[in-house]
Amino acid sequence: MKTSVAIIGAGPAGLLLAHLLASQGIDVVVVERRSRAHCESRVRAGVLEQGTVDTLTAAGVGERMRAEGHVHHGIELRFGGEGHRIAFDELVPGRAITVYGQQEVVKDLVAANLAAGVDLRFEVEDVAIGGLDTDPWLAFGGERLDCDFIAGCDGFHGISREAVAPHLAVFEKTYPFAWLGILADVAPSAPELVYAASERGFSLHSMRSDTVSRFYLQVPPETAPEDWSEDAIWAELKARHETVPGFTLATGPITAVDVAAMRSFVAEPMRFGRLLLAGDAAHIVPPTGAKGLNLAVADVRVLARALGEHYRTGADGLLDAYSATCLKRVWRAQHFSWWMTTLLHRFDGADAYDRRLQRSHLEFTARSKAQATALAENYVGLPYED
Amino acid sequence: MKTSVAIIGAGPAGLLLAHLLASQGIDVVVVERRSRAHCESRVRAGVLEQGTVDTLTAAGVGERMRAEGHVHHGIELRFGGEGHRIAFDELVPGRAITVYGQQEVVKDLVAANLAAGVDLRFEVEDVAIGGLDTDPWLAFGGERLDCDFIAGCDGFHGISREAVAPHLAVFEKTYPFAWLGILADVAPSAPELVYAASERGFSLHSMRSDTVSRFYLQVPPETAPEDWSEDAIWAELKARHETVPGFTLATGPITAVDVAAMRSFVAEPMRFGRLLLAGDAAHIVPPTGAKGLNLAVADVRVLARALGEHYRTGADGLLDAYSATCLKRVWRAQHFSWWMTTLLHRFDGADAYDRRLQRSHLEFTARSKAQATALAENYVGLPYED
Repeated sequence: MKTSVAIIGAGPAGLLLAHLLASQGIDVVVVERRSRAHCESRVRAGVLEQGTVDTLTAAGVGERMRAEGHVHHGIELRFGGEGHRIAFDELVPGRAITVYGQQEVVKDLVAANLAAGVDLRFEVEDVAIGGLDTDPWLAFGGERLDCDFIAGCDGFHGISREAVAPHLAVFEKTYPFAWLGILADVAPSAPELVYAASERGFSLHSMRSDTVSRFYLQVPPETAPEDWSEDAIWAELKARHETVPGFTLATGPITAVDVAAMRSFVAEPMRFGRLLLAGDAAHIVPPTGAKGLNLAVADVRVLARALGEHYRTGADGLLDAYSATCLKRVWRAQHFSWWMTTLLHRFDGADAYDRRLQRSHLEFTARSKAQATALAENYVGLPYED
Repeated sequence: MKTSVAIIGAGPAGLLLAHLLASQGIDVVVVERRSRAHCESRVRAGVLEQGTVDTLTAAGVGERMRAEGHVHHGIELRFGGEGHRIAFDELVPGRAITVYGQQEVVKDLVAANLAAGVDLRFEVEDVAIGGLDTDPWLAFGGERLDCDFIAGCDGFHGISREAVAPHLAVFEKTYPFAWLGILADVAPSAPELVYAASERGFSLHSMRSDTVSRFYLQVPPETAPEDWSEDAIWAELKARHETVPGFTLATGPITAVDVAAMRSFVAEPMRFGRLLLAGDAAHIVPPTGAKGLNLAVADVRVLARALGEHYRTGADGLLDAYSATCLKRVWRAQHFSWWMTTLLHRFDGADAYDRRLQRSHLEFTARSKAQATALAENYVGLPYED
């Protein structure tokens, strides 16, 4: 078998890349270890930057997103008994976020790829790769797929980065807490996302639709979902959110509970020979800044243009610049995600000085239009530079 | 002996307080351990916020400052082989800094106090205080001075805070480096302050006049001035500053070398009974943000109004609010000073991830008008809130 670009992973990165390459007439094959149903139901991120929305729209996969997604023009920072709105409409006019679940993006991309006849292979076992210097190949289920390039879009735990690990520089930070993620069949209790920095720890009030809410609770890193009863979850969510006058958190049936580790990670460079890493395969951010999915889309946008140039003109300028181009945005997102994480979470190891500093930082962010704008422009996504 | 307000310390805080109280007809005595000559020649801070300039001007002690001080409308952040100007004139129009040495402020204040007949006592040994709950007194050289209030303006190592230490909450952070301060008879090599974040460590290019430059080098905390020869100082200053095309650091005779510890410190509350702490006696910031002297002036401004109200009307509302009023600004300055310090210094304990984060933060500050404005508004000084 032969193809131009073999893509490992049918998450948002791999699927968007396949779609953008196929749209340029480039032959691709996508292999994915999990089932299509699994990929289309995995609950992950849900906040799309303006640039992500624009990219998906330009790619022709934005129709349902525009119909069903919710455009938000602000978020709330809640601390010290008050809510402070970071008003995107005022601070970064013309830019907003769209609340639309990652699994919905995946569904739209799977449908678009299948409609275009793209070769998507789910439940593919034992994928191996080789020949990355000059003649890359991908093997699975007894078959061998020769290709010009391999795109590693297989996430943090995938085989792509692992295959070239000795050639990469790794930058990493872990945090002394995790996030308990809760999906509940209840209407959101606030019209916008609420980032609550409470003495009891951080909590995020988010949503997926008019009838489905998504919450997160800062918890100890060794937490398991079964450690938390429904009653305990609601009690803790109420304790961390019902801190401003008049706010009541509506409750309802909890449909899913998961635990996400909090980690910052970058592997450099994002290219080794004919292997190109994109999205979580190359970098991870803690979810506080809602940057993971958006960074993956930004990577893929650069990569699709670079491969397009290669096949259209034979020029490799964009491909050679791929890693450096992406890493600028990656490090900006790394800093922003670390910033939001340290701004909002309770650090049990922090001394009294650090806690006061954190509070002063929060108050300054709420009060200074300049600091709020710096947060807002990162949150809605800085303009693409390429 | 009796007075209304006994002031310990003839630094900028104590002298400004004496002047502002005397101007309101309130009887004061200032006692100072060091000689007048020492106080008037101590090389310390040199960057005055807009509010400090306005306060000194309104107090009638700004004439020489306006004539001899240099108004700067920006600073430079230098890193990665480029200089990036933080343009106050564009980012925070109407607000600027004035470069005017602390010892010049002290000279002006000593002269104004003496001209007004204020009782300034230098070289006063063995000062003791007591009766702080209700009937405060100050003893020195066999004399006892009864008073209504004691203002502790005697700096970080003074006796005032020490006297009430068991009643205070202390918040503190130390840094793994110190600043070597260098005074040289050479014209400044740049028109504005240059904050250079180099791989070799931080260095600041500052100035005191058209013919006197002031430099700082980040050095290990245990450094002594005699560890550094003149040649070594110039070589290191050049290495850290001559990193942009066309920049040459002019050299000249070094007239003073000192080492300053880098520390963040706050004692709360700033009032205990009849004792009121102001300036360095209550809080210390690392000098990176140039906030120490400016915070002292802000404290004294609040205190002079509070004591003025007390003597004029008998109302103690402002006095009761003194600590809380000051601490808001104190913590803002604490955060800003920590922010500038961590943004610009080399942390030997930092891992590769932290270094990349620092670089991304620097680049964002240079590139984002919002983030640069947040820096600028802190640097020139946020408006007084009271």
